[in-house]
Amino acid sequence: MSKKITFDYWADLYSNRTEFMFSSEIRDLLALSARPDIISFAGGLPEVRAQNFQKLEKYVKRTLKSDGDINIQYGCSDGYYPFKTKLIDVMRLEGIETVEEDIITTTGGQQALDLLAKIFINPGDTVITESPAYTGALNSFKSYEAKIIDIPVDENGIDISILEKKLKELEKKKIQIKFIYLVPNFSNPSGVTLSFDRRKKVLELAKKHRIIILEDNPYGMLRYEGKPIPTIKELDIRGDNRNVIYLSTLSKLLAPGFRIGWIVAPHPILEKISLGVQSTILCVSTFTQRIAYEYFSDPSWVDNIKRFKGIYSKRRDIMLKTLKGNLSSIASWSKPKGGFFIWLKLPDYLSTKEILADAVRNKVAYVPGSGFYPDERGLNEARLAFCTENTERIEKGIKILSKIVKEKIKLYKSFK
Amino acid sequence: MSKKITFDYWADLYSNRTEFMFSSEIRDLLALSARPDIISFAGGLPEVRAQNFQKLEKYVKRTLKSDGDINIQYGCSDGYYPFKTKLIDVMRLEGIETVEEDIITTTGGQQALDLLAKIFINPGDTVITESPAYTGALNSFKSYEAKIIDIPVDENGIDISILEKKLKELEKKKIQIKFIYLVPNFSNPSGVTLSFDRRKKVLELAKKHRIIILEDNPYGMLRYEGKPIPTIKELDIRGDNRNVIYLSTLSKLLAPGFRIGWIVAPHPILEKISLGVQSTILCVSTFTQRIAYEYFSDPSWVDNIKRFKGIYSKRRDIMLKTLKGNLSSIASWSKPKGGFFIWLKLPDYLSTKEILADAVRNKVAYVPGSGFYPDERGLNEARLAFCTENTERIEKGIKILSKIVKEKIKLYKSFK
Repeated sequence: MSKKITFDYWADLYSNRTEFMFSSEIRDLLALSARPDIISFAGGLPEVRAQNFQKLEKYVKRTLKSDGDINIQYGCSDGYYPFKTKLIDVMRLEGIETVEEDIITTTGGQQALDLLAKIFINPGDTVITESPAYTGALNSFKSYEAKIIDIPVDENGIDISILEKKLKELEKKKIQIKFIYLVPNFSNPSGVTLSFDRRKKVLELAKKHRIIILEDNPYGMLRYEGKPIPTIKELDIRGDNRNVIYLSTLSKLLAPGFRIGWIVAPHPILEKISLGVQSTILCVSTFTQRIAYEYFSDPSWVDNIKRFKGIYSKRRDIMLKTLKGNLSSIASWSKPKGGFFIWLKLPDYLSTKEILADAVRNKVAYVPGSGFYPDERGLNEARLAFCTENTERIEKGIKILSKIVKEKIKLYKSFK
Repeated sequence: MSKKITFDYWADLYSNRTEFMFSSEIRDLLALSARPDIISFAGGLPEVRAQNFQKLEKYVKRTLKSDGDINIQYGCSDGYYPFKTKLIDVMRLEGIETVEEDIITTTGGQQALDLLAKIFINPGDTVITESPAYTGALNSFKSYEAKIIDIPVDENGIDISILEKKLKELEKKKIQIKFIYLVPNFSNPSGVTLSFDRRKKVLELAKKHRIIILEDNPYGMLRYEGKPIPTIKELDIRGDNRNVIYLSTLSKLLAPGFRIGWIVAPHPILEKISLGVQSTILCVSTFTQRIAYEYFSDPSWVDNIKRFKGIYSKRRDIMLKTLKGNLSSIASWSKPKGGFFIWLKLPDYLSTKEILADAVRNKVAYVPGSGFYPDERGLNEARLAFCTENTERIEKGIKILSKIVKEKIKLYKSFK
């Protein structure tokens, strides 16, 4: 779509919420990262080339042959039941015991966020996120005119003492938080993982203050070192199983192009979500859910995950090593134990937005930090995705980026 | 999902809009119509068994082989460009000349409605619909807390004199209509088609009162008699091309299971819609859009439409004939020249909701009329879909239904 400014005859007719709908910087950059000459640390694009296409073809053939007519027909708005039986198995591997009736499937993880925002957020309502937080979640919450309070993360995830203080303060003011949004495993964008102690503590706080936790877990199965930590959902299931709405996606386990995500929530909440599905998309594609059903019916999907992990962990290693070799004592960055992202902090007098222009001229792209804060902070920060490029290109790209950063620092100091 | 009533610990936390989100009666009945022993006139399920599955398999193979990695990756939120080139051809057959940059693809026609409601409707805003109107549209508009004014249709579509009067009245009160939602061809649920003169007149009124028209055209290519009438969009293109937002879906041309719809709108509006796509689903499945691209690249798709038309027109004919043979002088009904639906009116002392219980017990299903009105009128009306069942079953089903209706009338009169 052409982005040229056109006189808008209907400018006064839009809803108030459109004032809070901005183009995500990630997305504008996705366009760039599609250019093969650009080394892209921008979009978190999974290495789908490592998928087994021959097997995918087999799954699709089965989808068209067995119940083919049902699979291309309208489906149930709560999701395709046989596929949900497979999701039970997937979640069990992450320690979550659930049943089909507790799940609704969505058009990717993004729709899960949209539906939850739609059923919970009135204009002006308060939600809490990590800081920095996933842009797509911020966009979704903002589009329903939420007020976002972001709580800083350190290397062990969201800062519990700040969170605790903030919750007390809000309770005093009688402000009801609609939910706390967390990505506990290898968060997007920070890469950090919420420690076990903090998971217990955040659940405790949620129960004490009667708050819902949205636990978004797209990367949980992509751990490259250390032992898995129970999800907050698992901890909640061990108790009264009331506070945690769990969401995830197949975008990283299978492929983004099938647009499948899911939500596990208490039944009364699922009933509202189901109405949301009906009024927004009628139903998720049975066709792609059936393909996913075939994928998870073949035990080899676990080997695929192992293969993905092997690829991504090597890419993470080379990015960390090249950063260390080139930006030590200049910048700092997170050391993720899994997932897709490293969070980079440059000296605070530098702007990653400004540097991006130079970087792209030199064929390297990343996402500037400000898009991950509700109020455009993080000007000297950036998200580096290590999932997309091969190790050679990662090394080359980080070296180019480091050189630009060093030049900027030199320039800055020469003017001081 | 179990529908049992559970105590809802979070009942006070939902957004106001959830109070306007109800389960569509159509959808609850779709569950019924899936039972093979039920003759279903309920859901508007296309006859997907008449699709060419061997060819579909070929298209999917190509989708996985050529650019397979791109096709299962995240895509552009404005839609998959090559597929949009094909949509240009499809729309040209309906007289609409447009370009790729004027189109955004959506997750079925329902998401087009949701996105348009999201970017235009503030709580309390007024929109105009036909009466009766498509439930999915009513649900979508209600979920953004719209006030709906419905204008009756007759055999030539929406009543222009009532519309004109209403618009004058609203203008006097300084109430800005956000849009008029119309299904001009073989409307869902009424089956009626907006006449050429009225199309010109409604566009004239929209221009005079500065109102947007949402022209929803899922059934335009499924005409079984008479000559095509230009779309309102075509009439608008001949002028200043400003007032009409055109939407459609592949659910009836290809299959619902791929979840593909699209919107044609002025660029400033498309920019808002694109932001809506980003915050709700990130992007429509490139995988299914690529399959659709292959489908429309094969000239045989036009033959498929011809085959569908042959099937549906026979089904329409037998339904009309059986209604005439059994309910003449008792009931009245629309005589659609295309599409999927016949609108039935019984004597006003009968309730189609009450009769449905009997009908289902006798293995026949349909949708009671009240779901197609914003305020649950239409108690003696019903939507009969002729698209789903074969001619034998249609004849049998209408006979069963007619018998039940006659018994109800007899019972009513015996108590008078």
